[in-house]
Amino acid sequence: MHGRLGKLEHIGIAVRDLEEAKRLYGDVLGFRLTGEKELPDRGLRVAFLETGNTKIELLQGMTPESAIARHIEKRGPGIQHLCFSVDDIRRVMGELKADGVEMIDAEPRRGAEGRLVAFMHPRSTLGVLLELEEK
Amino acid sequence: MHGRLGKLEHIGIAVRDLEEAKRLYGDVLGFRLTGEKELPDRGLRVAFLETGNTKIELLQGMTPESAIARHIEKRGPGIQHLCFSVDDIRRVMGELKADGVEMIDAEPRRGAEGRLVAFMHPRSTLGVLLELEEK
Repeated sequence: MHGRLGKLEHIGIAVRDLEEAKRLYGDVLGFRLTGEKELPDRGLRVAFLETGNTKIELLQGMTPESAIARHIEKRGPGIQHLCFSVDDIRRVMGELKADGVEMIDAEPRRGAEGRLVAFMHPRSTLGVLLELEEK
Repeated sequence: MHGRLGKLEHIGIAVRDLEEAKRLYGDVLGFRLTGEKELPDRGLRVAFLETGNTKIELLQGMTPESAIARHIEKRGPGIQHLCFSVDDIRRVMGELKADGVEMIDAEPRRGAEGRLVAFMHPRSTLGVLLELEEK
């Protein structure tokens, strides 16, 4: 049981304006900008930053229907999700489902960096959006 | 500038019911429970958990006036803050203020684990509650 979820892979932060957020996290807080990507099919612009031990994804919605824009509409901008590494995503998804966790993604899909990912539904995880990513 | 904030020290998660949250994070997600504390002067019960590389604080308000209860009232339960280590908290606070970041704590104070801490105001950090903790 212990160790079902591995290391924290990244923290996702919902922002209204990616340029403004890059200035805050990069110039003011001093995190290192390592990359940037547009994912038009998911209505998403992402900037990747690193601190000593953690990766941060700044997420801006490109359309009002995107998951990020809807998150900001409902809860305001801020920390949106936590992503944890797993060895075998299908096995862990099966174990979590057996323990009553509801998955948003019935099957793993390819995430922003090409690896297999799946999200748990926050209504089954006390309001926290949690992502699994296969190593 | 880069490296102003050090490593992620912990993630704070606001919960309505600490026992329920310990079952989810401990039994279902498989994080390791390392301690628990009541801080009556701050109206707070805290459970400390660890994953491979990250500490998590589950935070339950003991009174409706506590910061955690007010956070849940406004935004629902969920991820509440990120805490980063710094070498010299007074120096970093001075630098952040000079760059326009507003601090909730004008002076560092003792946190749940006895170290010097200070929070930035989320209205100056794009909606994210960020804590500094001196090593």
